[in-house]
Amino acid sequence: MPGLSELTGPRDLRRLSAEELRALAAEMRAEITKTCLLRGGHLSSNLGVVELSIALHLVYDAPRDKILLDVGHQSYAHKLLTGRFRAFASLRTEGGLSGFTLRSESKYDAFGAGHSGTAVAAALGFARAARIRGEALHCAALVGDGSFMNGPNIEAVNDLGQSKLPVVVVLNDNEMSISKNVGGLSRYLARLRTRASYQQLKKDTKRFLDRIPIFGGWIERFLLFWKGIARYVFVKGAFFSSLGFDYLGPVDGHDLPELVSALTSARSMERPVLLHVVTKKGKGYGPAEEQPEVYHGVSPEGAERQISYPKAAGLALAELGREDPSVVVLTAAMPGGTGAEAFAKAFPDRFFDVGLAEESAVTQGAALAASGLRPYFMVYSTFLQRGYDQILHDVALQGLPLTLLVSHAGLVGEDGYTHNGCFDLSFLLHVPGLWVLSPSGPEELKALLLWARMAIPAAPVAIRYAKGAAAGDFPPVTPMEESPWPILREGRDCALLAVGELCREALRAAELLQEEGIEVTVVNARQLSPLPMEPLCALARMPLVTLEENVLEAGFGSSVLLALSREGIQARALCVGIENGFVAHAPRKRQIELCGLDAASIARRVLGFMRQSQGGK
Amino acid sequence: MPGLSELTGPRDLRRLSAEELRALAAEMRAEITKTCLLRGGHLSSNLGVVELSIALHLVYDAPRDKILLDVGHQSYAHKLLTGRFRAFASLRTEGGLSGFTLRSESKYDAFGAGHSGTAVAAALGFARAARIRGEALHCAALVGDGSFMNGPNIEAVNDLGQSKLPVVVVLNDNEMSISKNVGGLSRYLARLRTRASYQQLKKDTKRFLDRIPIFGGWIERFLLFWKGIARYVFVKGAFFSSLGFDYLGPVDGHDLPELVSALTSARSMERPVLLHVVTKKGKGYGPAEEQPEVYHGVSPEGAERQISYPKAAGLALAELGREDPSVVVLTAAMPGGTGAEAFAKAFPDRFFDVGLAEESAVTQGAALAASGLRPYFMVYSTFLQRGYDQILHDVALQGLPLTLLVSHAGLVGEDGYTHNGCFDLSFLLHVPGLWVLSPSGPEELKALLLWARMAIPAAPVAIRYAKGAAAGDFPPVTPMEESPWPILREGRDCALLAVGELCREALRAAELLQEEGIEVTVVNARQLSPLPMEPLCALARMPLVTLEENVLEAGFGSSVLLALSREGIQARALCVGIENGFVAHAPRKRQIELCGLDAASIARRVLGFMRQSQGGK
Repeated sequence: MPGLSELTGPRDLRRLSAEELRALAAEMRAEITKTCLLRGGHLSSNLGVVELSIALHLVYDAPRDKILLDVGHQSYAHKLLTGRFRAFASLRTEGGLSGFTLRSESKYDAFGAGHSGTAVAAALGFARAARIRGEALHCAALVGDGSFMNGPNIEAVNDLGQSKLPVVVVLNDNEMSISKNVGGLSRYLARLRTRASYQQLKKDTKRFLDRIPIFGGWIERFLLFWKGIARYVFVKGAFFSSLGFDYLGPVDGHDLPELVSALTSARSMERPVLLHVVTKKGKGYGPAEEQPEVYHGVSPEGAERQISYPKAAGLALAELGREDPSVVVLTAAMPGGTGAEAFAKAFPDRFFDVGLAEESAVTQGAALAASGLRPYFMVYSTFLQRGYDQILHDVALQGLPLTLLVSHAGLVGEDGYTHNGCFDLSFLLHVPGLWVLSPSGPEELKALLLWARMAIPAAPVAIRYAKGAAAGDFPPVTPMEESPWPILREGRDCALLAVGELCREALRAAELLQEEGIEVTVVNARQLSPLPMEPLCALARMPLVTLEENVLEAGFGSSVLLALSREGIQARALCVGIENGFVAHAPRKRQIELCGLDAASIARRVLGFMRQSQGGK
Repeated sequence: MPGLSELTGPRDLRRLSAEELRALAAEMRAEITKTCLLRGGHLSSNLGVVELSIALHLVYDAPRDKILLDVGHQSYAHKLLTGRFRAFASLRTEGGLSGFTLRSESKYDAFGAGHSGTAVAAALGFARAARIRGEALHCAALVGDGSFMNGPNIEAVNDLGQSKLPVVVVLNDNEMSISKNVGGLSRYLARLRTRASYQQLKKDTKRFLDRIPIFGGWIERFLLFWKGIARYVFVKGAFFSSLGFDYLGPVDGHDLPELVSALTSARSMERPVLLHVVTKKGKGYGPAEEQPEVYHGVSPEGAERQISYPKAAGLALAELGREDPSVVVLTAAMPGGTGAEAFAKAFPDRFFDVGLAEESAVTQGAALAASGLRPYFMVYSTFLQRGYDQILHDVALQGLPLTLLVSHAGLVGEDGYTHNGCFDLSFLLHVPGLWVLSPSGPEELKALLLWARMAIPAAPVAIRYAKGAAAGDFPPVTPMEESPWPILREGRDCALLAVGELCREALRAAELLQEEGIEVTVVNARQLSPLPMEPLCALARMPLVTLEENVLEAGFGSSVLLALSREGIQARALCVGIENGFVAHAPRKRQIELCGLDAASIARRVLGFMRQSQGGK
């Protein structure tokens, strides 16, 4: 029987019998499960869309037709079907396949993703381009129910609804995004999902309408109207038809023939269609079916045990929440990954999961602060990019004391390009009036969080920290009252100003440099904005080296240069950070090396810099 | 009869008779019209919400209750009712009232705004805070139909829908946002607006349901079901009830008793309610009723005639579009202000107004570029803040040649705080692979646009320019092939690197400095990223002064400092830009002075810098 290894491309699927397709789905599930348990990745969501991926490739003729996968994390089955079976074992490893869609990886990945809410807008762009060119091309966008009400997605849905373009939005309804779904729409979907009664009522309606005699006059008008309504409510799905879509569904997302039939209908309608598909996360793998959140993101086998900054932040907040009833916590669909769960369990009434909606979270946070409460928004660095305007417009302009707890800052390892938090310093440091802090260890994170609560009563704060830290010693925690920039080691030749996790690399680099006869000072540059000018100016008598896990442009080093220039100080400075902004997937430790941010690379850079300094230029 | 001058606050409204309220509305209209024609401002939209503003303040007890005005541009009537009648003539003038809501201006402005889509999230934040505190507080958020499908708004609507909190969302349906509305929802609203048939059908339904006998069995079950549906469709409004709202409406937005009655019902429901109000933009002022787009934003009387950069951009695109069929243009509900109209008229099939949806616009632009077309997104600098994540995630990471035409960069005058474009260099210059250009005049804008079309085939580009320019001579336009940084004037003492409109200030400053015996070079620093290192390094032999209409942090000057540091060049440099990121409303010329960016201030700064340079420090 032909299996994955015999597939040369998605067109080969059309030659398989129903039974062969069923066997293929089973093989794909086994492959996905095996690889995820080995390499880490999004197990549950990928097991949920195996049949859906097969159906999409049976009905759509990629790469001419465009299949857009929102977020891109559910692309494993798609990858297996599009010439990447042999490379699949390299998933999420250095030089291997990405865990998301990536244009540079395959012509079948029409549009890369990693953040939610972009697939429909991309489909709309492709469809508009095709219309301009007179090409008969079809697009399908697969969007999860959690992402559907994400702002950018609904903006595109509204735009698509009136466009009359042949785009099918496949709503993958698995009753949860990453954790349990929130928002009004999810209740609506739950009503639509009660499929038995839906079918029954449709039948009843038909019988009723067929049997009642027509008297003429208002009754006739009325019945015609009811027929319209019946169509409106039942056949179309009121919510979606309000937006200009034909609604089809719900369809069982694990029944391949039904999926193919529904998708074929939807595609042939040549206009915007919303196809509602119900799937089960983790389908076919017992443990994942039972606990899909746990298996949403799986860690690679043999991954180094990490000490979690987010967890430390959540615990610190839960502790703070006990003493301070004004503390409230927001998350945007990430209660687990951000560490917010600890607070949520302790204080469910003061915890709000606003859904996949970073924009709304920041604005709500601003209003909670305006009400006199102390809100904390726990969010990944990369997703906070979505809230940039709100940080300026709602928070900073109004000077409201919202605290952003920015986790997964810097390099994040296997999730790669779209998930690294390499830009937060660049988009936060210039926000007027925003304090930016970065701890060098989980204990210090807690200390900074508590300090900021008391010391910064009336301004917004961002605390940014890594996803995880390798076990080992962390720099000692000095109270902020003693110094905003604790000196971790003293030396007379040069000062390394290190941010966050790089403090430990800097200390190791200092050891290496000592062997070369260079004595460096290492500073824990934990207060990044406003820059503490007193220690900075004092340190600037030595050559300075800034170290950050952020792009160099507009980052910490750049901010130090500007501050020195404003003081009229001509210091010698070397800025070390990420040179190429988009860093591919690899273990975090390896990414650090590749970016030249490990101790050995730092030592090399400092050595070169010192030699050049001495030589002059 | 008591008029505006007798009102001490909104509570006084409750003592007025229906007739007195009608007279008050007329007085408010006259005041708004008079002030807008004198001071400029949002005439049409404010005339449309006079009765609605009165009704909101009659039913809600501000400032305890929170009235949130989305975008804040329709706040004039609200301002007149909340103790700002005497100051109203100062609207949009230096030191006078803001044209938007502003927390620092009045306790009745619960939450400031200027960008769309924040009011419901703010209301939700206030309502959640009240629940935590056990306060019985009500919130109303007034949202225009154009803003309703703005991503951040719908995120908050979805979240509110399931919250059960007492927030009334008043949908101000005037059939247009700034220009004609787009998107699926606007068609749905149009159907809801056909009010006569709606009322008729409701009556018919009731008669029908009351008269049909109950047979028992399936018929009974069926009728019960129909009753539910009738309620669902008619009473609730399917779209909004899908999201968890009770729907009321549509209500005539100029019928004060009806408005008060509907708002009172809505408020008393103690849960999320969507009140659909139909208003007429420009109501009561003939010219504005007929051409509401024209009167959306009115210029102040006696305003200096400006040469429009956006208009120049639109004309250049229309010209380019004739030769190049791959050129397509996107706007986010701003065809007029961005200058996109010129292209839209010439090539309607290659023009897309995506609605108030900057996020979706950037992603669609990326997909259009991925299709091989050449998309241009015309957008205000301040609104592009909404697309920051998409610029990184969809455009730059994929290296797609979308061109951002960023107008209203720098200071914008009377719109003030929320509309200045003082951050775009900070959020664009660090985007990997993005070219950033800034012309010193409208002719050069055209030249850069055409040059970038040919010279940068495979990378994203941003061209940022002012809203308008004072008439007068512009620097000569040198082809980019000759130099990325044309030298406008040569001098040996110091080099001024000026961005955009500041080139002219720099040239005037050079004259002033000559009188002091200082000869400066003036450079048109039109290529901001990547920085042209050859001219920069050559110029760095002199002291450098960077000049930009952007916050200093992470701006052009900061980028120059980093570039020099990376080259190991220790140059003396002074960065001149906006020191305090949020600049209040005042004529643009005055804002420039207040920020120290006019020729005289620049000359003073340079003089001080040169003296310090000579003195050493």
